[in-house]
Amino acid sequence: MVFSSALIENAVNEFSRLPGIGKKTALRLVLHLLKQEPSQVQQFSDAIARMREQIRFCKDCHNVSDEETCSICSSHSRNRKVVCVVESIRDVMAIENTQQFNGLYHVLGGIISPLDGVGPDQLNIHSLVERTQQQGIEEVIMALNPTIEGDTTIYYLSRKLKELPVKITTIARGIAFGGELEYADEMTLARSISNRLPLESYVQQK
Amino acid sequence: MVFSSALIENAVNEFSRLPGIGKKTALRLVLHLLKQEPSQVQQFSDAIARMREQIRFCKDCHNVSDEETCSICSSHSRNRKVVCVVESIRDVMAIENTQQFNGLYHVLGGIISPLDGVGPDQLNIHSLVERTQQQGIEEVIMALNPTIEGDTTIYYLSRKLKELPVKITTIARGIAFGGELEYADEMTLARSISNRLPLESYVQQK
Repeated sequence: MVFSSALIENAVNEFSRLPGIGKKTALRLVLHLLKQEPSQVQQFSDAIARMREQIRFCKDCHNVSDEETCSICSSHSRNRKVVCVVESIRDVMAIENTQQFNGLYHVLGGIISPLDGVGPDQLNIHSLVERTQQQGIEEVIMALNPTIEGDTTIYYLSRKLKELPVKITTIARGIAFGGELEYADEMTLARSISNRLPLESYVQQK
Repeated sequence: MVFSSALIENAVNEFSRLPGIGKKTALRLVLHLLKQEPSQVQQFSDAIARMREQIRFCKDCHNVSDEETCSICSSHSRNRKVVCVVESIRDVMAIENTQQFNGLYHVLGGIISPLDGVGPDQLNIHSLVERTQQQGIEEVIMALNPTIEGDTTIYYLSRKLKELPVKITTIARGIAFGGELEYADEMTLARSISNRLPLESYVQQK
């Protein structure tokens, strides 16, 4: 692509380093910003720089936070005895969006994946064990993706926690709402049958 | 969407104001930036702020420029007697990418479109007439999109320029390379027949 301005070329290059944004999209975004008020563009640029510079990670749950302790961990209306273990902050957001969980979180920062060179030491596992012990946590919910790596991580964590007086649960696997039996993989279908629920509890959930 | 950090929420909101970027994509981009080095994110943010703040528009052709006069207008290797009139800087880039045009440009900044409230006064038309007169331009090529508005603008410009000793041309309309006759609209097909070329010139161009 030929640019007559180094300023624009530079901005396009920076945009196109973002995932899923190619040169053409980057150019479209830059030309859009060029049409905006300078103050608005400054606001955009500031929001991004400030976010990266000032963001912190909660000392308890490793979720992103504006303070030393995140808003979830410091909330008084949440059940401090239940901790939901997730892979990333994105999962925290997904579960928070359901508004169905009132406990705390623990962000591992990844899952155990030897192929990608991620071992237990790179994850926030030590702090989970410590926290479970010191804060008298009664239930740890494993909310990891149902993959080989997810299951490995669950297995590893459950062994680390097995000496402690804590109940370990995993999120339910099954046929998703709107999903079709016919197209579900065998594993999911098999699990959804072996973990079948009494009708009353299904009706209650509805 | 529920955010546990105002910094992130803010950055996501700013990203999602860009065209074609929804909340989910914005979140994906923000989480990506969060994983980058702070210095890299600063560089991204700086490139955008600097671009909007320092960008200038060429005093001759209204193309984007880092200086008072753009690199095309100030180049000594270009044919200063031919000016190609385009709607936007994006069109300048498209034509520059072909590396087939060696003249100068004139960016109108839009086209005449009464429905959108764009009249001749909002466009860089006066400066085109002035420039044609003062700089002894010999040919003005109308490279506008083949729409009703484009044709209206061409007609308006040609009337404005008709007193001056300048040749007015338009880019060729026809069947695009790789296009299929069968699917071409009637207007294009009709024009491509009435503007047919002798075979020699077609072979030359190949």
